[in-house]
Amino acid sequence: MTPFELDPRLRNDTCHIASWTLCDVLLMNDARFAWLVLVPRRHGMSEIDDLSPDAQGLLWHEVQRAGAALRMVAPCDKLNIGALGNIVRQLHVHVVARCEGDAAWPGPVWGSGPAQAYDEKALDERIASLKACLTG
Amino acid sequence: MTPFELDPRLRNDTCHIASWTLCDVLLMNDARFAWLVLVPRRHGMSEIDDLSPDAQGLLWHEVQRAGAALRMVAPCDKLNIGALGNIVRQLHVHVVARCEGDAAWPGPVWGSGPAQAYDEKALDERIASLKACLTG
Repeated sequence: MTPFELDPRLRNDTCHIASWTLCDVLLMNDARFAWLVLVPRRHGMSEIDDLSPDAQGLLWHEVQRAGAALRMVAPCDKLNIGALGNIVRQLHVHVVARCEGDAAWPGPVWGSGPAQAYDEKALDERIASLKACLTG
Repeated sequence: MTPFELDPRLRNDTCHIASWTLCDVLLMNDARFAWLVLVPRRHGMSEIDDLSPDAQGLLWHEVQRAGAALRMVAPCDKLNIGALGNIVRQLHVHVVARCEGDAAWPGPVWGSGPAQAYDEKALDERIASLKACLTG
């Protein structure tokens, strides 16, 4: 079996937060939004129905778990969940905490302009608070 | 219990295709994309985790079923699935068949400019082919 390898663009744009039963949980390095990306550790999949029905159930369970944790770390007005993959084909699901008036509101975060990387301290703090909610 | 009522903007922008166990299945009246919207017939919900765990499972099952049907009617390069709700808060999930080079490619369909309504014949044909796949 070909081992799982994270797409280089996802690796470049994110920080690893946790490895759950199915997915790696990544923080998008974009200080404009509290934004997680869940990537099933499966090789060669691009659509959700490439996963077995059981794995699909687990994926949505992990998406909901990520959303609940995100809400604790970054209170928001609306969660946005998206599985697009038009650019990065490796199967992944976005979970984003949206606030009225944020940098893309009320539009989607995808295609909303260049990411603004966190400064080092803010990134460390966000990672630490997410790890406290998402692991253990 | 307050009865379910479809948000007026969704009603205005879509055509009813089918009523499944949980969701009404609607076609977005935008000829640029083969685009379904699934709306759980539940009052006062805006987030997926407002649904019971069983209903969430059913929602994702129906989303996958919609995606499979869409693929038959409109062969595509990528399915896009999104639950946003920043503008219309009534809980709904988008399932969109995306083709390389379509009107928003590789960006998201949301916020991609004004819808282009189907002409009457094309709309009738699309509805008929979707009904054949999505009902019965």
